[in-house]
Amino acid sequence: MSSVITAVYEITAEDPLARATDVAVEQSHELPTELAPQNAIDLSLGVVRSIERRAGRPARAPVADPGARAGGARGPRRVVLLGNVSLQDGVRLVDLDLPASLLAALPGPRLGVAGVRELVGEPQHALLATALKPVGMSSEQIAELAFQIAAGGLHIVKEDQGLANQPWAPFLERVPRIVEAVRRANEETGGRSVYLPVVNGPAAGFDEQVRFAREQGADGVMVLPGVAGFGSLARAAELFPGGMILSHPSFLGGFTASATHGVAPDVLFGTLLRLAGADASIFPGWGGRFSLTREQCLEIADAARRPLGGLAPILPTPGGGMSIERAPELLEAFGPDTVFLIGAGLQRGGDPRRASERLVAATR
Amino acid sequence: MSSVITAVYEITAEDPLARATDVAVEQSHELPTELAPQNAIDLSLGVVRSIERRAGRPARAPVADPGARAGGARGPRRVVLLGNVSLQDGVRLVDLDLPASLLAALPGPRLGVAGVRELVGEPQHALLATALKPVGMSSEQIAELAFQIAAGGLHIVKEDQGLANQPWAPFLERVPRIVEAVRRANEETGGRSVYLPVVNGPAAGFDEQVRFAREQGADGVMVLPGVAGFGSLARAAELFPGGMILSHPSFLGGFTASATHGVAPDVLFGTLLRLAGADASIFPGWGGRFSLTREQCLEIADAARRPLGGLAPILPTPGGGMSIERAPELLEAFGPDTVFLIGAGLQRGGDPRRASERLVAATR
Repeated sequence: MSSVITAVYEITAEDPLARATDVAVEQSHELPTELAPQNAIDLSLGVVRSIERRAGRPARAPVADPGARAGGARGPRRVVLLGNVSLQDGVRLVDLDLPASLLAALPGPRLGVAGVRELVGEPQHALLATALKPVGMSSEQIAELAFQIAAGGLHIVKEDQGLANQPWAPFLERVPRIVEAVRRANEETGGRSVYLPVVNGPAAGFDEQVRFAREQGADGVMVLPGVAGFGSLARAAELFPGGMILSHPSFLGGFTASATHGVAPDVLFGTLLRLAGADASIFPGWGGRFSLTREQCLEIADAARRPLGGLAPILPTPGGGMSIERAPELLEAFGPDTVFLIGAGLQRGGDPRRASERLVAATR
Repeated sequence: MSSVITAVYEITAEDPLARATDVAVEQSHELPTELAPQNAIDLSLGVVRSIERRAGRPARAPVADPGARAGGARGPRRVVLLGNVSLQDGVRLVDLDLPASLLAALPGPRLGVAGVRELVGEPQHALLATALKPVGMSSEQIAELAFQIAAGGLHIVKEDQGLANQPWAPFLERVPRIVEAVRRANEETGGRSVYLPVVNGPAAGFDEQVRFAREQGADGVMVLPGVAGFGSLARAAELFPGGMILSHPSFLGGFTASATHGVAPDVLFGTLLRLAGADASIFPGWGGRFSLTREQCLEIADAARRPLGGLAPILPTPGGGMSIERAPELLEAFGPDTVFLIGAGLQRGGDPRRASERLVAATR
């Protein structure tokens, strides 16, 4: 069993076993089995292990793929799990079981919960993060906002996903100014807030931007795997030793929006992004502007932290909806090994430093 | 108007105008507008241009984003079009209108229809392609299959998306053998079949694999933008001058599977992948194993070829369902500027060379 990947799909179909068998073939051979040579069947054909019919719900079908098929690369593993069948309705990836040999070969998180806690100097309490926005501000305005929020004690100051290389705040100008602003805030308060620029350029400039962020003294980067590919997380980690790698969910919603299609949110935002190398994984928290339920959010948090081979637990990072008022509810639900992302809430009232201080106090 | 990107969304909501306004803010500022500084509002806030309510169908809302916001990078443009709102149900990107300045700055196809026709030496008729499968075959078996199909006159022999670096057919071993096999077939027939390996490794090895494919004498590469990121198409083109860049839809289905969410198939598989640099874009043809309708497929073909700034038209590449029997119907529907992808059909009967010859004859 130890070289076999098992992916569990929910199947919505008249004949779930037939459909699951199609999925197994589609995810491995993509060819009618009678046409495949015997050695290929032995080595790499996917097999439906069982089918669990459930009243009023999709059937559950674990599909085993011989592990060696994935062949030493990460991209193909995503293909194995949800490649061509991502094009089909009625098939949803809801769980996976990876052999220890594969887990050991995957990138996985480098800092994880413990490493990020050490980086930000917060051994115990919940972690707080903000996004610097809106786009359209000058580098000076963004740096000033970063200063206020870091001085207010927030642990992580990250850039908004929409920041790129706009003429009013170009990457090469903006990053060193924000580094300086956060450093100045830390000196003033004795704190250890960290700053994560977003790496958001064309593929050819990715490495360059990560290296620049590191050289300038940022503390890690935010990456958009839905735009830059899942491999971008491990690539960023490789180029930024000791840096925190934060995953942003932009353009990933296609996989989770339908209940009969795609990937279960906990598998995507918890497991897959953890395997791919995120130290913290942003997802839309309930009660905010997006569509996940409370239960789905807590399942993501569980997938981010539960034992998984030798991989470190990572920080679930619910975005949207955090406030002083909701802090007790959210802390109670998620527990302290969480990064809470708060945006507009800090800017409302016109004093982001004071608002940050109050939020930090509210989460102790 | 010339620096403004207009994205048209279908909105499924009780109050479509309110929802569209939320989308405009979410896709630009991600912050309540009363909190944004005036210069940021002027430069970068998205605006709903109009709302068209339609009986029994989602409302249509063009949202204008000041073009400069995208800031000279490609990734952010996808963020502008469908970033955070990809996480929300009830919002679907169905059209976009890009300013000439932006179109000129985007990578776009390098060969396009004319360049690929020149590469394969086929000025007039429909183009035919196959995928080498199943995975599990040895390099020798794959090369022999490639020889048979190239000798049978198929224009494009591409690797299956599932091929990676499996021990039984490692990339470095497989690619030169298939190059040699296709070359031998071309010498025998006087034809000009081309071979496209799939670039499917971890992010760090992407450049290396593309360079190796080129050095070994392949004719281009197949790339999986759903796995490797949309930027991977332009990156591959940059590293492989004169090579054909074929896009595979694996892991992109999440965007098109729901009618009230994601991206319309013609925008994704036609327009966006054309903008990103594909010369040919594979999508699931109707009547095959996947879920698009005939109408959606023909809309994709139209988006791939219609005038779009100075960008070359590209080859829509319906996958699945092509056969000698269906050739007249599919040729009639798609027209000759199309790559038809055929898999199992060539292997059925045990003589892929003869089957290829018959299919070529059937499409003349």
